[in-house]
Amino acid sequence: MILLIGAYGYVGSTFQRLFAARGVACRGLDIHELDCTNLDALTAFLQRERPSFLINVAGYTGRPNVDACELHKTESLLGNAVLPGVIAQACQRVGVPWGHISSGCIYTGARPDGSGFRETDPPNFTFRQNNCSFYSGTKALGEEVLADAAQCYLWRLRIPFTEVDSPRNYLTKLMKYERLLEARNSISQLDEFVRACWECWDRRVPFGIYNVTNPGNVTTHEVVAMIQKSGVCKKDFQFFRDEAEFMRIAAKTPRSNCVLDTTKLEQTGIRLTEVHEAIETALRNWTR
Amino acid sequence: MILLIGAYGYVGSTFQRLFAARGVACRGLDIHELDCTNLDALTAFLQRERPSFLINVAGYTGRPNVDACELHKTESLLGNAVLPGVIAQACQRVGVPWGHISSGCIYTGARPDGSGFRETDPPNFTFRQNNCSFYSGTKALGEEVLADAAQCYLWRLRIPFTEVDSPRNYLTKLMKYERLLEARNSISQLDEFVRACWECWDRRVPFGIYNVTNPGNVTTHEVVAMIQKSGVCKKDFQFFRDEAEFMRIAAKTPRSNCVLDTTKLEQTGIRLTEVHEAIETALRNWTR
Repeated sequence: MILLIGAYGYVGSTFQRLFAARGVACRGLDIHELDCTNLDALTAFLQRERPSFLINVAGYTGRPNVDACELHKTESLLGNAVLPGVIAQACQRVGVPWGHISSGCIYTGARPDGSGFRETDPPNFTFRQNNCSFYSGTKALGEEVLADAAQCYLWRLRIPFTEVDSPRNYLTKLMKYERLLEARNSISQLDEFVRACWECWDRRVPFGIYNVTNPGNVTTHEVVAMIQKSGVCKKDFQFFRDEAEFMRIAAKTPRSNCVLDTTKLEQTGIRLTEVHEAIETALRNWTR
Repeated sequence: MILLIGAYGYVGSTFQRLFAARGVACRGLDIHELDCTNLDALTAFLQRERPSFLINVAGYTGRPNVDACELHKTESLLGNAVLPGVIAQACQRVGVPWGHISSGCIYTGARPDGSGFRETDPPNFTFRQNNCSFYSGTKALGEEVLADAAQCYLWRLRIPFTEVDSPRNYLTKLMKYERLLEARNSISQLDEFVRACWECWDRRVPFGIYNVTNPGNVTTHEVVAMIQKSGVCKKDFQFFRDEAEFMRIAAKTPRSNCVLDTTKLEQTGIRLTEVHEAIETALRNWTR
């Protein structure tokens, strides 16, 4: 049985659908059902339920966006840094291998030559650089906390999107926002993301950190052009002049925009669709 | 009734003695008695017990020293950053004014002119500067979390000492360590510290941050000379050549050494003894 912590959010429910489709026994756990930040309670639960693998999808991302984390620092620290640390300790005590949904939002930009950051590149959008949102700071602390975790995957998700209209879907967001910020990003088709995570364990690839984004990267203008070409939304998209204007008008805290390298995951044999193709497919099959 | 969270440690038990001596009703709470990081549980407790004031002495300092925090990152984050944030929320919900034991260890050095850091100077030994121990990083996050806390004191303690021999006592540590690091510090006589904290509330001085150290500062060599002169310990004290040697041989993570300004507290009328005098008194009355 796979234990899924944070089972009912955008990412968690996608894992549940994958497991249902594949006939994999999965026990969803809501963090309101059990206080997973309580080490003794979680350890007892694992000893009783004996999952063969655990996936932690729970975290604090802020609603409607990461700006909310600036106002909810305690929740951000608890959900993104302490929770994974407690799960690591409980899993180590009981001997449960597991995977944690980390984030690529602990990087900004790209390597000097324009290529993507590899898993061996230290995060550069963290409290340590003092350039980040509180959200990114806490996600990076989460990776620090798990640096020595045994039998643990860290899967880095970035800006999820699918073919289904949803307030959490990047494509929906682009269509709904009044104005957009031009930036270059690696992003994750969510169904492919959860499949890739699961295959890491299913195929027993080595534990460790993996960038789980669609290969390549896109700019906001490229995605907007694809949306317009698809006919899904034909509005006249407006852009901020630059990041300074965006920060002044629309945001309380800087956003991570970054390019990630996906070679490490590809070398395990687990592949995601090239990013432009994945976006075009989502738009072609767009479902409201 | 005063509620004291973390009542049985070095600082907590000193508060208990003060309250006993002054006939102040105090309810000590151990964090193993109630999970104070659980907002609902703590809120319910406050609603039932209705303390007139709350003091949070609980925190994670590491044993035998702050190096342990490098190995216990989750506990450090939970005890030093999340716990004060949860207490702030519970106190706000129930309308309980409170005080938090913060630390001066979120600074390094002194102002350019050699004077002490004031409460208005931003901490400079934090994750944001990427120069600190994990302990100091989490204590600084604790202050960030409390930046907007209502009806809250932040009392900064530094390197506590008293006249009673104890493994937590700075003077004992200096006498026990094989070798010492020369540094200039502001430090806190612990009985004076807890008295000053209590008087902040007792006299209803304005809420906010206070450096609660004995006025002035001392070098390790000065303290060692006082120890030798007092006759309490006559050994031949050995020093590290410099901080680099200290870091190479004895420490896993950098230590905070810093000078704090105590004008803000003094201006409320609450005074601590000048630091050299406080040390001499402790040594004169030394109790094993």
